[in-house]
Amino acid sequence: MTPARLIIRAIRRPGSIIHPFQRPVLLRLGGQRFNTTESHERPATTATATTSQKKQVRLTAESYPNIKRDSRFAKLTSEDVAHFSSICPVLSAESDDIEAFNTDWMRKYRGQTRLVLKPKSTADVSEILKYSNSRSLAVVPQGGNTGLVGGSVPIYDEIVISMNSMNNIRSFDPVSGILVCDAGVVLETADNYLADQGHIFPLDLGAKGSCHVGGNVATNAGGLRLLRYGSLHGTVLGVEAVLPDGTILDDLSTLRKNNTGYDLKQLFIGSEGTIGVITAVSIICPQRPSAQNVALFGVNTFEKVQETFIRAKRELGEILSAFELMDDTSQRCVAQVTGKKRPLDGEETKFYVLIETSGSNKEHDDEKLEKFLMALMEDETIADGVLAQDETQARNLWSWREGIPEVCGHWGGVYKYDVSIPLKELYSLVEDVKARFIEYGLLGEGEAVVDVVGYGHMGDSNLHLNVPVRSYDKRVEEVLEPFVYEWIQKRRGSISAEHGLGVAKREYVQYSRGETELSVMRSLKNHFDPKGIMNPYKYIKT
Amino acid sequence: MTPARLIIRAIRRPGSIIHPFQRPVLLRLGGQRFNTTESHERPATTATATTSQKKQVRLTAESYPNIKRDSRFAKLTSEDVAHFSSICPVLSAESDDIEAFNTDWMRKYRGQTRLVLKPKSTADVSEILKYSNSRSLAVVPQGGNTGLVGGSVPIYDEIVISMNSMNNIRSFDPVSGILVCDAGVVLETADNYLADQGHIFPLDLGAKGSCHVGGNVATNAGGLRLLRYGSLHGTVLGVEAVLPDGTILDDLSTLRKNNTGYDLKQLFIGSEGTIGVITAVSIICPQRPSAQNVALFGVNTFEKVQETFIRAKRELGEILSAFELMDDTSQRCVAQVTGKKRPLDGEETKFYVLIETSGSNKEHDDEKLEKFLMALMEDETIADGVLAQDETQARNLWSWREGIPEVCGHWGGVYKYDVSIPLKELYSLVEDVKARFIEYGLLGEGEAVVDVVGYGHMGDSNLHLNVPVRSYDKRVEEVLEPFVYEWIQKRRGSISAEHGLGVAKREYVQYSRGETELSVMRSLKNHFDPKGIMNPYKYIKT
Repeated sequence: MTPARLIIRAIRRPGSIIHPFQRPVLLRLGGQRFNTTESHERPATTATATTSQKKQVRLTAESYPNIKRDSRFAKLTSEDVAHFSSICPVLSAESDDIEAFNTDWMRKYRGQTRLVLKPKSTADVSEILKYSNSRSLAVVPQGGNTGLVGGSVPIYDEIVISMNSMNNIRSFDPVSGILVCDAGVVLETADNYLADQGHIFPLDLGAKGSCHVGGNVATNAGGLRLLRYGSLHGTVLGVEAVLPDGTILDDLSTLRKNNTGYDLKQLFIGSEGTIGVITAVSIICPQRPSAQNVALFGVNTFEKVQETFIRAKRELGEILSAFELMDDTSQRCVAQVTGKKRPLDGEETKFYVLIETSGSNKEHDDEKLEKFLMALMEDETIADGVLAQDETQARNLWSWREGIPEVCGHWGGVYKYDVSIPLKELYSLVEDVKARFIEYGLLGEGEAVVDVVGYGHMGDSNLHLNVPVRSYDKRVEEVLEPFVYEWIQKRRGSISAEHGLGVAKREYVQYSRGETELSVMRSLKNHFDPKGIMNPYKYIKT
Repeated sequence: MTPARLIIRAIRRPGSIIHPFQRPVLLRLGGQRFNTTESHERPATTATATTSQKKQVRLTAESYPNIKRDSRFAKLTSEDVAHFSSICPVLSAESDDIEAFNTDWMRKYRGQTRLVLKPKSTADVSEILKYSNSRSLAVVPQGGNTGLVGGSVPIYDEIVISMNSMNNIRSFDPVSGILVCDAGVVLETADNYLADQGHIFPLDLGAKGSCHVGGNVATNAGGLRLLRYGSLHGTVLGVEAVLPDGTILDDLSTLRKNNTGYDLKQLFIGSEGTIGVITAVSIICPQRPSAQNVALFGVNTFEKVQETFIRAKRELGEILSAFELMDDTSQRCVAQVTGKKRPLDGEETKFYVLIETSGSNKEHDDEKLEKFLMALMEDETIADGVLAQDETQARNLWSWREGIPEVCGHWGGVYKYDVSIPLKELYSLVEDVKARFIEYGLLGEGEAVVDVVGYGHMGDSNLHLNVPVRSYDKRVEEVLEPFVYEWIQKRRGSISAEHGLGVAKREYVQYSRGETELSVMRSLKNHFDPKGIMNPYKYIKT
């Protein structure tokens, strides 16, 4: 990197142009074959995926034969449908449109609901749950249906409560930055509304064009802004929710400080519709940054990546908004599959880091970033680097990070894990898994495993482990599991950093939670929902 | 303000030199006379307070005759004491030192414990609770005993579990900034430890020299850094707690992202020892800012204060660390009582704002703040202003904010409320209360009420309403209550912004929480602590 390349130009992060709802790549997670991609990343367009889309999606009840319909639940009668129709618009089994509510967007999960309810108000939701609870009819709250773990579609005949029609912004106070909106407001709609007022929604993810604010809160979505704005547990100030018996819990505070009893709303953040339906959210929204920069650089060791991260936090401090890690394998994959010229001219390094800054003063941000990068170059903490000089360059740099999940599917399939690991050991999982494949003779030219790829939100300690394969192979699975889960468990990591549990991970939660924690969780579920009607068969086994 | 005064020098916020544990001022809250001060503010040294300190502190059981000892609880036997002595060091009724654990630091609350336990480990706490629960012996967890609502001292013969001896820093990862420490670590000790590593504890308050990290979490302390670093609900990553039956709940995650079930730790944040004892905390600690600035300026209307706040957030954005509001009445009181020259030369304005910035680059921060203030002066949003040029000046500017609670007690007494109100109406409470006093002929020369003072953490929507009086008067109380509580209730404000409920506010919580919320809270309390042994008679009436 010569100083001449350090000229910085105003750019915009291109996140808003990425739409995840195209054709997904054939992936595997936890030994199971399925179509997915991270919600905030560009999906693949492989032939395999295209073929799979044409098929009828397999019923979740068939994919998970160990999940039996709970006989405690009543079966829907025509009287029930008539009653629900008196509350709000409904979509019944006769409608062709009902399948869209039964099937998730990845086309991995398919339920068997015979009724979709479209409440228009919190009172409607209350009436719905009161009746459902009294009749022991199971329900599934559904937001934008953009989840990755099958949490928002039914498995058997659970009634879908679609939040699509509850989509009003209730209030916004430009002085405090506090937004109150219905749960069914689309994230992008909320963010666009805020942009007009000079504010920003403190959460960003690729599914923003479809996902609901209520669904974001119900799943505790992480996304791209967590490093800067923190988690929803800190930014959400209030929640309005309807409890399983129809009681409306109005905890829709618009206060930053309110120490008057247990912080009930926190229980609903990340509860995935298992203890109630979130109907509205109050959230504090920061000022929208006026300046953004993107840089990409090569680093030779993970120790130096950590050193870079420490120094980025110290020297860029308040303006650092992304710190993304990519290993060389991931970058070679992107180059090979896309045929694009790699952004750095120098020798290949083991790691690459993408940094983004967002601040209130462009000149200051430029100066901070330039000084930071020059110092890192001078003492050889980083080996090479480039700074985006315009929006096109910034988008190109981001594409080397965001293109990874897509290209990993290029060879036929990919085993994929989305995990949290304490930062010091973040990359060791990739190395250990790779060593195992070599030990078992499964990695290399002509072998099942193409390579082992690691990348992710370094700033959030969130690693994506991807294993691109030429074909799915039982031997590969046996090397991966339970090794990966046990490895994570030993380091007190998380088997689900940001995607939640849903159906996909309810069998694996014990790798990240102790029996005491699970027992307290089960007792809370039972406390709030003694009849178990809320989003059954998911989250945690009861 | 001339440009010449805009020269900025490196300064340090003087917060760390303020110690609240001196002689407190005689105050009233909720119509009751007591000694207190805000935990992060300089206390008063009035003759009244000195006199009151010499007296034996009245038993809380006498001050609150409606609180009766719960007959479900067993009485301590010599066998119990022997058993507890086999677990950990104890302080028995014979010890002169026991009174320090019975009485709060304000000398307002006094309990009647006959046993203090000093566990040295989580296992000790577990043994203690297991036995206490089986015997139905009530307990009170006690941290630094620096609370303002009587939450950490017993009322009757509850056994005190002092966390003083659990004071180890368990780990710190300089890469992620994540600290794990025992609950009994003193906040200042933790912050000093972090300072050596270039990090900062994301919470600051005047009691930092005595309060415990575990107590901070148990009471969801707000303090001085909330505007910048957010609440503990966002920064605390994990909690280790012992449940009332002795079960150890190990939710001591060191992960920023972990979406595997209900976020149990959140229930303990702000639970005031009513559902378990927090024994350790994991928290993410930002890089310590290297630069700080302080400015004070006068503003003519509350609309312009709000405008200033919006622009401060936009233009100072990422470096803004305090935005404190003081009305002119408060500043006149400080000037009158202290005899100090007011910091601004110009005409008096109705409001004054103190701004603090903290950032990673002094020059940039200076430039941002200077540009911001010049623009506000030019378009007359602010009327006058001054920028601290060194640490002494900064400390002087802070003293005009921090000196308010002390001087309010100058005339004989003060009625005091610490509340959250939606920002738009933050100051209206002061105006409405003042109007009522005028209407009732109670305000002015020779009348009971000296004036009505408003100030507080504007950035957090947290108002301190102070009514300095020449003498306590039933008529004054009748004007204030229930008016103030009803006024707050109408605006969905909070009757306790940051101090919690304890004994002091358990009677008033319904002004900030609906019956449904309270009912869910009660059911949760009963769920976790069916025998009710944890910190009884406080928080929420069961």
